[in-house]
Amino acid sequence: MSPAPTRVAAVSDGIFIAFEGGDGAGKSTQVRLLASAYALLGRSVLVTRQPGGTELGRALRDLLLHGDHMSARAEALIFAADKAQHVEEVVRPALAAGQVVLTDRYTDSAVAYQGAGRALGAEEVRTLQLWAVDDLLPDLTVIVDISAEEGRRRRGAVHDRLESEADEYHAAVRAHFLALAAAAPQRYAVVDGSLDPVAIHDRIVAALIDRGLMAANR
Amino acid sequence: MSPAPTRVAAVSDGIFIAFEGGDGAGKSTQVRLLASAYALLGRSVLVTRQPGGTELGRALRDLLLHGDHMSARAEALIFAADKAQHVEEVVRPALAAGQVVLTDRYTDSAVAYQGAGRALGAEEVRTLQLWAVDDLLPDLTVIVDISAEEGRRRRGAVHDRLESEADEYHAAVRAHFLALAAAAPQRYAVVDGSLDPVAIHDRIVAALIDRGLMAANR
Repeated sequence: MSPAPTRVAAVSDGIFIAFEGGDGAGKSTQVRLLASAYALLGRSVLVTRQPGGTELGRALRDLLLHGDHMSARAEALIFAADKAQHVEEVVRPALAAGQVVLTDRYTDSAVAYQGAGRALGAEEVRTLQLWAVDDLLPDLTVIVDISAEEGRRRRGAVHDRLESEADEYHAAVRAHFLALAAAAPQRYAVVDGSLDPVAIHDRIVAALIDRGLMAANR
Repeated sequence: MSPAPTRVAAVSDGIFIAFEGGDGAGKSTQVRLLASAYALLGRSVLVTRQPGGTELGRALRDLLLHGDHMSARAEALIFAADKAQHVEEVVRPALAAGQVVLTDRYTDSAVAYQGAGRALGAEEVRTLQLWAVDDLLPDLTVIVDISAEEGRRRRGAVHDRLESEADEYHAAVRAHFLALAAAAPQRYAVVDGSLDPVAIHDRIVAALIDRGLMAANR
């Protein structure tokens, strides 16, 4: 496979693809389908996730889950530390070895969720995240996009006051994802998460072929 | 006490003083002596230290001590997370309550030690630390300054090749501290750590009176 024209980080022949989107969007199904597709094309594939993709990351994740009264900045820094370790220990070595790396969430989730939380600005979270990963950007970020309504339906939630507040939060998260994609369209593919899984997969494959990140024929 | 003319962060009548310097410089003795002096003047004093001044900080410190193969950025982010939590949970509430807060190490230690470690630039560590503490700077930072030679003598170390390398490292740490002080002399007092403890204390008190941070008479 020749180097992709839209390559941002030049890392031998490794390919780095991130999946982002709200909870229940169906990201992990798409990660599995795409891993299979690349494997069929003869590529070595590494599937990983954030937060918690390393031993340090799991320890940090436990702190995040059980730490009461954590300040917004401390939390953002711990998420960033997880990301830094994950990139250095897992992602960069795999890319250097020419693997296809598929990650379930990356820097954009931090920006979208922490930005929607409103204690910190999305732009400062983004700066922090980019420092943590030493500017390693995916070759393509796939946003599996679902509406707040569809997300609620998939969570099986009733429609009450608390869920309305949750809707607002999820709508803000979604708006952050879409804004990131709109700001750099060549590095993003936004796919409609309300479609059936195979239709979503087909669109992701088409986007990858279009960008030179997947061969159209074996 | 009237507000200090050199006040950087306006936080009611709280006073925030950081002690920095190499290992063995005698910082903790000076913190104790100054805490006593402020208490004699009728002030409520909070003595704290970094890293590890909060429950989260202690958990992070354990990770730093036992985490093998931690990336330089992950380590810097974890130190910064400790700082963020410490400032929000301990330092700001005490200052808001009008206390005198004395901290044994603050942001400058991160800059000096990580900068001397050379994996990261001192300036980027400084940016990260200032973001973590949301720009809360001490009213005065006291640098208890000792030479690498004096530091070695106090560590009781022999003079061999390893110690020569250690000397270089400690000299780099010291250079970072002195550069920070030189860049903002109104916010720093550099005192000669080779003097006896009472003489050092007297100079610190003189520096505080000079800057309006301590009343000359009760």
